Amino acid sequence: MNLDSTQNNYLEQLKCFLEIPSISADSKYNQEVQKAALWIAEELKNTGCTKTEITQTKRHPIVYGERIIGNDLPTVLVYGHYDVQPPDPLELWDSDPFKPIIKKTKIHPEGAIFARGACDDKGQLFVHVKAFEEMVANNTLKCNVKFLIEGEEEVASESLEPYLKERKKQLEADIILISDTAMISNAQPSIVTGLRGLSYFEVTLTGPSIDLHSGVYGGAVPNPINLLSDLISKLHDNNQKVTIPGFYDKVVEISDEEKKEISKVPFDIIDFNKSIGIKGIIGESGYTTQERKSTRPCLDVNGIWGGYIDEGSKTVIPSRASAKLSMRLVPFQDWKEIGSSLKSYLESLIPNCVKLDIKDFPGGNPYVVSRESTGYKAAYLAYKDVFGVDPVAIRGGGSIPIVSNFETVLGLKTILMGFGLDSDAIHSPNEHFGLFNFFTGIETVKQFYHHFSQLYHP
Amino acid sequence: MNLDSTQNNYLEQLKCFLEIPSISADSKYNQEVQKAALWIAEELKNTGCTKTEITQTKRHPIVYGERIIGNDLPTVLVYGHYDVQPPDPLELWDSDPFKPIIKKTKIHPEGAIFARGACDDKGQLFVHVKAFEEMVANNTLKCNVKFLIEGEEEVASESLEPYLKERKKQLEADIILISDTAMISNAQPSIVTGLRGLSYFEVTLTGPSIDLHSGVYGGAVPNPINLLSDLISKLHDNNQKVTIPGFYDKVVEISDEEKKEISKVPFDIIDFNKSIGIKGIIGESGYTTQERKSTRPCLDVNGIWGGYIDEGSKTVIPSRASAKLSMRLVPFQDWKEIGSSLKSYLESLIPNCVKLDIKDFPGGNPYVVSRESTGYKAAYLAYKDVFGVDPVAIRGGGSIPIVSNFETVLGLKTILMGFGLDSDAIHSPNEHFGLFNFFTGIETVKQFYHHFSQLYHP
Repeated sequence: MNLDSTQNNYLEQLKCFLEIPSISADSKYNQEVQKAALWIAEELKNTGCTKTEITQTKRHPIVYGERIIGNDLPTVLVYGHYDVQPPDPLELWDSDPFKPIIKKTKIHPEGAIFARGACDDKGQLFVHVKAFEEMVANNTLKCNVKFLIEGEEEVASESLEPYLKERKKQLEADIILISDTAMISNAQPSIVTGLRGLSYFEVTLTGPSIDLHSGVYGGAVPNPINLLSDLISKLHDNNQKVTIPGFYDKVVEISDEEKKEISKVPFDIIDFNKSIGIKGIIGESGYTTQERKSTRPCLDVNGIWGGYIDEGSKTVIPSRASAKLSMRLVPFQDWKEIGSSLKSYLESLIPNCVKLDIKDFPGGNPYVVSRESTGYKAAYLAYKDVFGVDPVAIRGGGSIPIVSNFETVLGLKTILMGFGLDSDAIHSPNEHFGLFNFFTGIETVKQFYHHFSQLYHP
Repeated sequence: MNLDSTQNNYLEQLKCFLEIPSISADSKYNQEVQKAALWIAEELKNTGCTKTEITQTKRHPIVYGERIIGNDLPTVLVYGHYDVQPPDPLELWDSDPFKPIIKKTKIHPEGAIFARGACDDKGQLFVHVKAFEEMVANNTLKCNVKFLIEGEEEVASESLEPYLKERKKQLEADIILISDTAMISNAQPSIVTGLRGLSYFEVTLTGPSIDLHSGVYGGAVPNPINLLSDLISKLHDNNQKVTIPGFYDKVVEISDEEKKEISKVPFDIIDFNKSIGIKGIIGESGYTTQERKSTRPCLDVNGIWGGYIDEGSKTVIPSRASAKLSMRLVPFQDWKEIGSSLKSYLESLIPNCVKLDIKDFPGGNPYVVSRESTGYKAAYLAYKDVFGVDPVAIRGGGSIPIVSNFETVLGLKTILMGFGLDSDAIHSPNEHFGLFNFFTGIETVKQFYHHFSQLYHP
């Protein structure tokens, strides 16, 4: 890919953004998170925002920027996040997660930028900033633009909801635009019309008050690891259905039409398995892999620890064992309701000999958008213009909990214009974002504004 | 407890020994392990051994010392270990595990010495060294004595078996004496007539080749933590019996007479639960707590880890999850045979979508000694002399794998004269050894030598 000087410039700027280790989950990085907020606020000011603002919260700051050009024009609210996932396990990265480098890959022959946050979400957010800059510079912007950029997306956006509630007026808009999802491939663009919700907990079982010698006590006392494993095991039945009572009560079976639409999306199970290095698949009986990962709810343990985990052998019965576990939810499951059901269920399952503690993490509800909406139509036309093919509507498996909050609090629908690919390794070692995706993204966003203003004032 | 200057001197010496962090499991401490070997070898020389020797092995050195006083006299081989368990979790210690201090406790009103290794086994080993020193000094020693002190007991004594095989002649003896077990209480001495065997493994399940985003993939791919939990859960049935095929085949049901003997041992379930802070017990149906922890085999997970285990929430499906698990075995289970059965069973249980790796750790066979043997009788009389009550024969739940090796390789029976208490927190934070136990132990060991030489030459 031959880059011109503007494009090279964009990449150098993006690298500076990616170099800041703005890991929101780990309080050791609080200062770096602040630094990233400052950096993006400065960038908004430099590219054309007439007002920018950094609001401190209980945890990480929220950055706001706007360019209002006319009361009769539609307003687009761009949401993104400048925080990133923790990079560990570090030993599996081929390069430093916070020293961005550009390398070619099979899927990105024109090159991709490798760094934590390259795709999720600094790179995709930067697409919007650069599209905005160009439209301002060329005087082609025909919409008011508001930017809302937070630093807690990877830790469940706790500060954002009160912020939204306090600033309903300031955040008034006609549509919300987010690039924080993936397309099917660079040849087949797609628009995410649904997201799964999230419910996340940390569960701890305590048996003895201290670690015990497994010889002296083994067989006669509760072992919290064995019992926690048993508890986790009981959360699925043999058909890999989640066993929490009422879990599926509000889940609407997808229609035959939707099943057909999903099956149209190019998908090869051998390629899929190969791409993530699995020997085979497993999942809820009666559904295809594509259906399972987007239209069906699920439960996964995200972390587990207890007892002796260092080198060698140690014969203990540990005092405690813990697991972090989360559920992905689909319309019309409610994350708080499902969370309560899980807690009651866990309490009903544990034997009396151990103590159960459950720590709540904030979650979010699932989301769907109609393909008949103006926002969807503008996005559809934009992808078609730039990629030359009709984009496909798909439901994503991930969660952007704030999207359902935008609807509840601000009364606004969100259009999810993703430019990443599933293979970009977000949340994994060697996260990257294709240069093709970055630059094509900028063009597509510009086309979105064009079509949205046209459809709005036809 | 009023201590005389000799006793104070003994405690100061023991403190020096305890200050050396000879943690055999962690290679970071290899030099400290060497230091402890040197220290104890020097001590043997100073107390009366006419020959001492430090033998380097593949891992940690073995210390030998002897005092041969007559070919017509019986020979006692004293075994002990100078290595200790890792002290973690460090935050649960009330004092530095390697800065010994003396404190009074409810159970040890006369004081106890707190340090890692205080009871297991530096303190108990030191009982023998000091008894030996006194007998040599007073010219009351009527047996030949050999000391065999290793540094790999806490990591399964891998170097000792080849050492024994090479030195059968040098190690010839009439009985082996070990203090590395517990008594019922300071008012009720007991002699361990049986030990459980040990079989230890590390099991790893691998699903995807990298950590995946649990939103993008959740519900459609194998999650190694969920599947490992399932695997662990399947290792016990609802009656808490181990489900490995053939696991109980060679286990001999304890006789009604033995059950009666066990039930005589003072035991209060409320005190038991309180002493280790458990809300209740759990174990194999059909057996009492006392039976479960000594005469029945069991399976415990000793450590588990996988996925994100730091602060906050991270939504990953991890690539791998691992567990360390061990089984305690009873006569006539064979640790290698049971290990093979476990491996085959695990292989039969895992679904095709994940890869199973099993790492072997060395184990050991269970052991029993007859109450009709000369060694047992001498020990019985020694405790009776010093404590003023008949000692009780009990079977211990822990494993000293080398004890069955002594029988196989050297053809020697072992007498387990423990002076610790179960509440001494060996392998746990705040390990300690009562001063009463230490000094009474020295007297009891001296009486053992007396009775053993008498019974041997009546």
